[in-house]
Amino acid sequence: MKALVLFSGGVDSTTCLAITVDKYGAENVIALSIGYGQKHERELDCAKKIAAYYNVRYKQLDLAPIFEDSDCSLLNSSDQDIPLESYAEQLSRTDGNPVSTYVPFRNGLFLASAASIALSNGCTEIYYGAHSDDAAGNAYPDCSKEFNDAVNSAIFIGSGNQLKVVAPFIGLTKAQVIAKGLSLDVPYKMTWSCYSGGNEPCGLCATCRDRAAAFAANGICDPAISAKS
Amino acid sequence: MKALVLFSGGVDSTTCLAITVDKYGAENVIALSIGYGQKHERELDCAKKIAAYYNVRYKQLDLAPIFEDSDCSLLNSSDQDIPLESYAEQLSRTDGNPVSTYVPFRNGLFLASAASIALSNGCTEIYYGAHSDDAAGNAYPDCSKEFNDAVNSAIFIGSGNQLKVVAPFIGLTKAQVIAKGLSLDVPYKMTWSCYSGGNEPCGLCATCRDRAAAFAANGICDPAISAKS
Repeated sequence: MKALVLFSGGVDSTTCLAITVDKYGAENVIALSIGYGQKHERELDCAKKIAAYYNVRYKQLDLAPIFEDSDCSLLNSSDQDIPLESYAEQLSRTDGNPVSTYVPFRNGLFLASAASIALSNGCTEIYYGAHSDDAAGNAYPDCSKEFNDAVNSAIFIGSGNQLKVVAPFIGLTKAQVIAKGLSLDVPYKMTWSCYSGGNEPCGLCATCRDRAAAFAANGICDPAISAKS
Repeated sequence: MKALVLFSGGVDSTTCLAITVDKYGAENVIALSIGYGQKHERELDCAKKIAAYYNVRYKQLDLAPIFEDSDCSLLNSSDQDIPLESYAEQLSRTDGNPVSTYVPFRNGLFLASAASIALSNGCTEIYYGAHSDDAAGNAYPDCSKEFNDAVNSAIFIGSGNQLKVVAPFIGLTKAQVIAKGLSLDVPYKMTWSCYSGGNEPCGLCATCRDRAAAFAANGICDPAISAKS
């Protein structure tokens, strides 16, 4: 049994990677990272190092041309600033629409790319780290359980019943993801989540806030902040 | 209302393009062609010319790196020869699996790429030319009605209910697609379908045979053969 993991180098996908290595062995796991024109590439540097730490095959794709017309604030193609506030604050103004850091259909595109690569390499499962906090309030509609069910059907049917999508955290909060990862000794100090590209996490963007709160809920400080500051 | 059309330069997607131009006007249509490491690029050359004929915006992507590990016979990455026989002959030996020219999850990947680009450009619909002949016998599972329903759900939900997939030929045969196209004066002599990259269609690969039969069912010879020979 071989699995491909969608792997950004952040908290959630690193925990996913740890689960698959624990379950199938490093030799049966491929980690796939995807550049998409984000304003910095620190997370890709971290992803490569973490894949080496776990001794899994690492593949990297560049899909930036797909987003060249997008105005998403995470991307080079946009002049919008990345909001330095929580998702709750942002969602109070979106009228039920996605937040400005929603990259158009990113998870769908990444899963479809993963499907083509998984089928080309004899993998029968794709893992990814979507969790319930990211789906809340429709901030990222491509993280929801409903999306996961639909994309899993599309990939299973469209692959001739050869490939499944596994989203082990789809019903969990980020704090619960971290609890699972701590039990597997995930090296969280090596991960990167911050939307800004500074030398250390900004602590102010929504993902920095989410991650700090999730570690705090587990009774610890974010190891990446203490490691990098 | 703006639409994006997945556009290979073949019979089905050119008919799709004609339908959207007829419905929304050329200024509201984007034609998207995707290279994927196929053994020749004749269809992309044709696609560009047909997009110019219809006066629509044309975008081209290169997703070949995604298929670099694939053994699909259509691709540069494979040493397999493209079969010079009909789908029916091939399917008699596949034991219910896809044919060797099935590019792993190609339609899923192309639709997901189209979704990201459509959302970045204010389109609310994606059109593509899947039809029932290609889905028959599980030759191309990513052309089936079941796949279309699932991928439409994934794209609608994952886009925050902003984008729909339209497959106007999902219940039609290729002969019926051509009948529709003839009523819209589609310039079929400009299209290219053959899997080989010669100066004229080989007439022997499965797609050449399918296309010739579909034109014959409409009482005419394939205009591309008479135009190019």
